[in-house]
Amino acid sequence: MWTTVLCTLIYLVSSVITSHDFEKVLEERNYLIQKGLDLMLGSEIVLSDNEEKANKIIMELKEKEIDYGFVNPQYYNFSNHFFEYKEQVKKSELFKIIQKMPKGAVLHAHDTGILSPDYVVSLTYLDNLFVCFEENNIQFLFSLETPTSPCNTAWQLMRDARYSSGNVEKFDANLKKHFSIVIDNPHEVYTNVNAVWSEFQQYFIATTGLFTYKPVWEKYFYDSLLAFREDNVMYVEMRSVLPDLYDLYGNEYDILDTAASYKKVSEEFVKDYPDFFGAKLIYAPLRAVDIETVKEYISIARKLKENFPDFFAGFDLVGQEDLGSPIKDFLEVLYETGDDLNYFFHAGETNWHGMTTDENLVDAIVLNTRRIGHGYAIIKHPLLIEEVKKRNIALEVNVISNAVLELVGDIRNHPLAAFLATNLPVVISSDDPGVWESEPLTHDFYVTFVGVASRRADLRLLKKLALNSLYYSEYSNKDQIVHEFEIKWTRFIESIVKTQW
Amino acid sequence: MWTTVLCTLIYLVSSVITSHDFEKVLEERNYLIQKGLDLMLGSEIVLSDNEEKANKIIMELKEKEIDYGFVNPQYYNFSNHFFEYKEQVKKSELFKIIQKMPKGAVLHAHDTGILSPDYVVSLTYLDNLFVCFEENNIQFLFSLETPTSPCNTAWQLMRDARYSSGNVEKFDANLKKHFSIVIDNPHEVYTNVNAVWSEFQQYFIATTGLFTYKPVWEKYFYDSLLAFREDNVMYVEMRSVLPDLYDLYGNEYDILDTAASYKKVSEEFVKDYPDFFGAKLIYAPLRAVDIETVKEYISIARKLKENFPDFFAGFDLVGQEDLGSPIKDFLEVLYETGDDLNYFFHAGETNWHGMTTDENLVDAIVLNTRRIGHGYAIIKHPLLIEEVKKRNIALEVNVISNAVLELVGDIRNHPLAAFLATNLPVVISSDDPGVWESEPLTHDFYVTFVGVASRRADLRLLKKLALNSLYYSEYSNKDQIVHEFEIKWTRFIESIVKTQW
Repeated sequence: MWTTVLCTLIYLVSSVITSHDFEKVLEERNYLIQKGLDLMLGSEIVLSDNEEKANKIIMELKEKEIDYGFVNPQYYNFSNHFFEYKEQVKKSELFKIIQKMPKGAVLHAHDTGILSPDYVVSLTYLDNLFVCFEENNIQFLFSLETPTSPCNTAWQLMRDARYSSGNVEKFDANLKKHFSIVIDNPHEVYTNVNAVWSEFQQYFIATTGLFTYKPVWEKYFYDSLLAFREDNVMYVEMRSVLPDLYDLYGNEYDILDTAASYKKVSEEFVKDYPDFFGAKLIYAPLRAVDIETVKEYISIARKLKENFPDFFAGFDLVGQEDLGSPIKDFLEVLYETGDDLNYFFHAGETNWHGMTTDENLVDAIVLNTRRIGHGYAIIKHPLLIEEVKKRNIALEVNVISNAVLELVGDIRNHPLAAFLATNLPVVISSDDPGVWESEPLTHDFYVTFVGVASRRADLRLLKKLALNSLYYSEYSNKDQIVHEFEIKWTRFIESIVKTQW
Repeated sequence: MWTTVLCTLIYLVSSVITSHDFEKVLEERNYLIQKGLDLMLGSEIVLSDNEEKANKIIMELKEKEIDYGFVNPQYYNFSNHFFEYKEQVKKSELFKIIQKMPKGAVLHAHDTGILSPDYVVSLTYLDNLFVCFEENNIQFLFSLETPTSPCNTAWQLMRDARYSSGNVEKFDANLKKHFSIVIDNPHEVYTNVNAVWSEFQQYFIATTGLFTYKPVWEKYFYDSLLAFREDNVMYVEMRSVLPDLYDLYGNEYDILDTAASYKKVSEEFVKDYPDFFGAKLIYAPLRAVDIETVKEYISIARKLKENFPDFFAGFDLVGQEDLGSPIKDFLEVLYETGDDLNYFFHAGETNWHGMTTDENLVDAIVLNTRRIGHGYAIIKHPLLIEEVKKRNIALEVNVISNAVLELVGDIRNHPLAAFLATNLPVVISSDDPGVWESEPLTHDFYVTFVGVASRRADLRLLKKLALNSLYYSEYSNKDQIVHEFEIKWTRFIESIVKTQW
């Protein structure tokens, strides 16, 4: 009898303890999940009532998309190649919202890779354009007379070539292929990073004669700013190799003239669209050079800074990082110049580990780079992750670029997921959106938000990414640009809340 | 005159300062690189003179392979699908060295996925085997008479089917396809995680009747231990669903009998090969079940522990994690059992982020799991990374499995690179090497060392990974097994140093 009572008592007490303990386990579980989320980029943002309402709408749309993919991985877009889903996602309601969203600034973009191939085709309708079709290659030149520069076949007036082709539509479709790396079978053709980079670089080579014609150069830049503005970007820092320009009359324009063109266009644009905050310039010539060339680059950069103190933002080196010279080769000369120039180095745009390419991250950091272009490989360098946090160096992440240029297949494996979760100073940018036919910035934001970030990441992440792009910019009056952003943001939030969903 | 002298002086002083400062930058650069390397798994290991010599040989081979790939990415193996390079890499000198290397223990492997399809074909030559060929399916049963269990076509004696086929070689080649998921065009067929998992699971379904025949069950396990030993593994912890077994005489064997078979075979094996340290069992039934079934599982697990206290290591749940029930669904019952059973949960074997699958990581941790199976998604959870470090929970990483089962394409994007760089408690294992025709463990070590880890990661990493597999095992006498490992290791190092390279 006593035994039974005692046993019952022990059982009761132990089950009380157990369920009490289990409560503690549940608490611990929720704590780990919540504290994990609290570490995420943007988690410190407190949403207003209206923002909370908009957030609810946005998160319902986001969760619906993700949950459908979770149950139907065969239809999940983001594990496929970007070319396979880039058009389809434009139909998403969430995509449309993100398109309308003020996204702040674009801090990592290359000046001649912004606009769509259709736009580039439209440029070939301009007068006085000559074309030279070569095997797997094309050249352009604006000229009053048939050009005499080398052509393996023959220079023709573009107009003649087009209309003598018999089928203008087909002609333009073929032409367009030179202005895009989008193809139907990327898995078969772009089988390694060199293969896709070769096509990518061919675009820049093919368009040189077209774009460096001074009127086109200025028009392309104006229209790029327009495209960014239409995609709800308010300010741009543009990387450029700053080629010499030409015109129909044999005048040649040097780098300073090219930069002056940009400055002029930017000012004109701001006059036409006073809600836009203009552009600044990062001089970013090719990295696959010797040290003497880098010394020349730096001397040019100094002149640019002297001539355009407010327009010139700083210096970088561009080109396929694995194949180009590592920063290390120029360390001393770049160091000596360091106090005079701001650096915005590309670094760690690679899959390699323990090579010169990912060690560019170290050199960028010791050279006090203001931001790092890509930084893809930093995930494998925990010490450098701490350094960029400590030194507040932003990572300019271009998630679609990294997918298209064959760093990563399934976008969910992009290290950006960890960067966001770890609250690294990240800005989202688009690199060369025209070359892979994506929207100027929306695709990158959308893929980041729906494909890369946690399903639980919400409007606070989106807002923080936009704010980061202003905070880490070189725009001088931060208060002013953030103030204008807040006005646009409030309007955007209202438009979501007012819409019938 | 004085101006010139003054200027020269200023120049001299400033150039002294500059070059002095630059020395500091170089120091900082080297510090960041070296300190980064010092954080890596295994960096605390001090190599003996002989190990240093072996390391030099190994690193020369490794660097040669990587540097060739860096310059020729079109021929670089590890960015391709595993099926494309798995045979080719066997020719690598470094692969052969890693094969000979004592690799410690295999802590994450599934009992019926260890041996090659050729081995499984050889089992079909055993007497009394019947086969039922169905569309896209195959069944096996050992029986003295024609089986009466359902077959959409007809049961045939395997011998009759084979020799009446007219072409035994072709017959066996076709048969082999059921025992492997290796195909020529994985990119076209295994387009998403469900597609490859479906094939993968089909292997286990198809082989059930073959493997659960008690004599085959015991033979397969014995031969698995043999294969591991030949691949220089010295101890195994095997996950098993522990199916009921059968024999020719209508006897049925329940889970306890199945476990007893394993224990018996393990003991026999150790008797035959006294340098092998045997096996322990992790009972790991299917996760796609309801809570009542989990309660039954636990009751079975308790019985296993009671009956085989030294052989039974603990409990896990298996099956495609995204599709199965999350641990959360069983949290309370698993928690209540927690003090009685050691857990070795699969968790975070997924590309998803912020879903139940990666939140399994949280549940595994709060349930005091001893180790985590895979943990692939933990890279997106910095707080959980800290927790596994703090609680010393090992991650059982199966890098080839993750590639083959479509979590990651280019192996250089595997989060293992970051795990190693961050000194997480990692053990390397092979999951189901037979199903994708890899060596029992060598391929996983080789790919980890050459494809995933830093180019600068050396013999210390390899040794640490082997030691970790012993340290994080459930083997009771750690001193003894580590001592034996050290003897084997010393012999291995000597064999490298003595070889003419």
